[in-house]
Amino acid sequence: MTTPNPRTGLQLRSLIMKSGELELSLASVPLPELGADEVLVRVEASPLNPSDLGLLFGTADMGTATASGTSDRPVVTARVPEGAMKAMAGRLDDSMPVGNEGAGVVVEAGSSAAAQALLGKTVAAIAGAMYSQYRVVPVAQCLLLPEGATPADGASSFVNPLTALGMVETMRREGHTALVHTAAASNLGQMLNRICMQDGIALVNIVRKQEQTDLLKAMGAKYVCDASAPTFLQDLTDALVATGATLAFDATGGGRLGGQILGCMEAALNKTAKEYSRYGSTTHKQVYLYGGLDTRPTEFVRNFGMAWGMGGWLLFPFLQKIDPAVAQALKQRVAAELKTTFASHYSKEISLAEVLDLGTIAVYNQRATGTKYLINPNKGLA
Amino acid sequence: MTTPNPRTGLQLRSLIMKSGELELSLASVPLPELGADEVLVRVEASPLNPSDLGLLFGTADMGTATASGTSDRPVVTARVPEGAMKAMAGRLDDSMPVGNEGAGVVVEAGSSAAAQALLGKTVAAIAGAMYSQYRVVPVAQCLLLPEGATPADGASSFVNPLTALGMVETMRREGHTALVHTAAASNLGQMLNRICMQDGIALVNIVRKQEQTDLLKAMGAKYVCDASAPTFLQDLTDALVATGATLAFDATGGGRLGGQILGCMEAALNKTAKEYSRYGSTTHKQVYLYGGLDTRPTEFVRNFGMAWGMGGWLLFPFLQKIDPAVAQALKQRVAAELKTTFASHYSKEISLAEVLDLGTIAVYNQRATGTKYLINPNKGLA
Repeated sequence: MTTPNPRTGLQLRSLIMKSGELELSLASVPLPELGADEVLVRVEASPLNPSDLGLLFGTADMGTATASGTSDRPVVTARVPEGAMKAMAGRLDDSMPVGNEGAGVVVEAGSSAAAQALLGKTVAAIAGAMYSQYRVVPVAQCLLLPEGATPADGASSFVNPLTALGMVETMRREGHTALVHTAAASNLGQMLNRICMQDGIALVNIVRKQEQTDLLKAMGAKYVCDASAPTFLQDLTDALVATGATLAFDATGGGRLGGQILGCMEAALNKTAKEYSRYGSTTHKQVYLYGGLDTRPTEFVRNFGMAWGMGGWLLFPFLQKIDPAVAQALKQRVAAELKTTFASHYSKEISLAEVLDLGTIAVYNQRATGTKYLINPNKGLA
Repeated sequence: MTTPNPRTGLQLRSLIMKSGELELSLASVPLPELGADEVLVRVEASPLNPSDLGLLFGTADMGTATASGTSDRPVVTARVPEGAMKAMAGRLDDSMPVGNEGAGVVVEAGSSAAAQALLGKTVAAIAGAMYSQYRVVPVAQCLLLPEGATPADGASSFVNPLTALGMVETMRREGHTALVHTAAASNLGQMLNRICMQDGIALVNIVRKQEQTDLLKAMGAKYVCDASAPTFLQDLTDALVATGATLAFDATGGGRLGGQILGCMEAALNKTAKEYSRYGSTTHKQVYLYGGLDTRPTEFVRNFGMAWGMGGWLLFPFLQKIDPAVAQALKQRVAAELKTTFASHYSKEISLAEVLDLGTIAVYNQRATGTKYLINPNKGLA
């Protein structure tokens, strides 16, 4: 308890105005009184996930961003293109806090025994508004980190680990036996490799660079296909023949990759087909688009028969759909393997003010493997 | 029984050779002895459905078609582009009969009472190889047509009627309450309108021409949107708000239409949304591509949140998936309403030799509403 009863704290806000302007700023917000089953967390680590960037920048064109304000209270403004305002209709003139998940130290606790037991402990939470110095969190939403784990260790305890576990669980639920994953050298992709190796599941990794292939191979990945290689479609088909994977999770969303995966799955299935079917293979092939790293339109030629599906995949509806006991088991596995299977790596730790630095934005908004930043909302504010 | 014990008959054949050549011809095939539970049908009516054209022409470029042979034994040859040969790998050098469904008169019957009972009757069947003068069909696969129904009345008793009923059944099974259909002025589309009006289901029809709008409106259709109108996206969104449809069946497959439907569904849902969700509406929106009338790549911008799916839909896997009693009930409804709900219209009746006439091919291969042909494999062969 280094901060006695703090009653205000800085919070990052994203506001899109009816005028078509995005404004990012730091607000000083009062902290509510704690309920009996609530704790006050001093947030010390929160990742900048692609899903956070979607809320942070909305559909603004960050090429138009300009800086104002002061060094400790910076303000960033940018234009939202007229055609992109429609998608923002639901949040206009609503100043929104940002940050899905994070971790920190419990500095104040409500009166219940469960809350008091967390005092001084390091916890993680997926509570929203985590790009804040302080965050009130219900005890039931706190994940108590193992002894010795730092807030940085636990910052990404939910989104990436549960997404990776959710992919494997989806595979089992939908009757597939192996997986394909794109943007496979990401933190999430590395977790998925460790899970699949532990669980004995064949995983086809798709990357875009030789160094990403090297990284995954060094981790022990068996199948890595480089989409920038001239032999990509053949490499992928060979890996699909070897693994029998008929389910893919694609983080890129746009362009032709999703359709190419379906096409290669079909080619792989037809290599072992016994007789000609005019409608293509009768085995269902599925690609879930769970991200939009490639902002181009999605495009595919329908060269994969009729037994196929493409669709969106999102963690929260998935967690709501499955048995609560299964969801709880997934969370417990994350806590138990936080520093091994679910370890995350960040290229830099930045303060709330640095989140609003134009040069810094230009780096982390690339959403590229290797430019993942961790926010410490209390950095420089001791 | 006008044809006593015919032991050979003409059959249309489609052959794609390893050399990359498509050859269409008429073969004289011997008729097998009948089993106890089989009947011999003199086929007098069989439709040229898009699914038949797929098998008939494969991926050949029909712009390269040339004619040879004689007037009663014509031969058509065409080139399969090199890049399109891969998709044909499963059928190379295999001379294939064509024609999913059709109807005719039972001219010979096996020894069982069930077979004998059909002698002289008019029946329909989805037995494959129906572009044949005579076809041996198991009794269990025969649909006995109502008294007074001609083979032409019953030629399309399966593919279109069961597809239209399957769409409605899929809607119910997957929790939707209204439907969208493209190429909606087709025979299938007209059936779907009659079914939905009978069953009180809201149906949004998408067409491409004013005359198609007029045709459907004259039938009593309430929602018809013309994709060629400048107000199309707004018209469609309005119809989706009015109907609440979150499921579409798209016969075009290619281009942007499928994605536009999902985008308009999302816009319609957001009009009634209570609060902003960064991931878009949480209501699942689904488009099934059940045809490929538009041969361009499929393309979409992902402006419809994360709760969406696109996929192939095919009648036969659907029928296998549902309860056999339900499938049987659908077939009985078709037989009972053959001349009303499930009436089909053809622009022309042609012989087997005419199927292989280049000028005729150029018309029916447009797969356009209003150019649907009916084959009578015994026309001119009495």
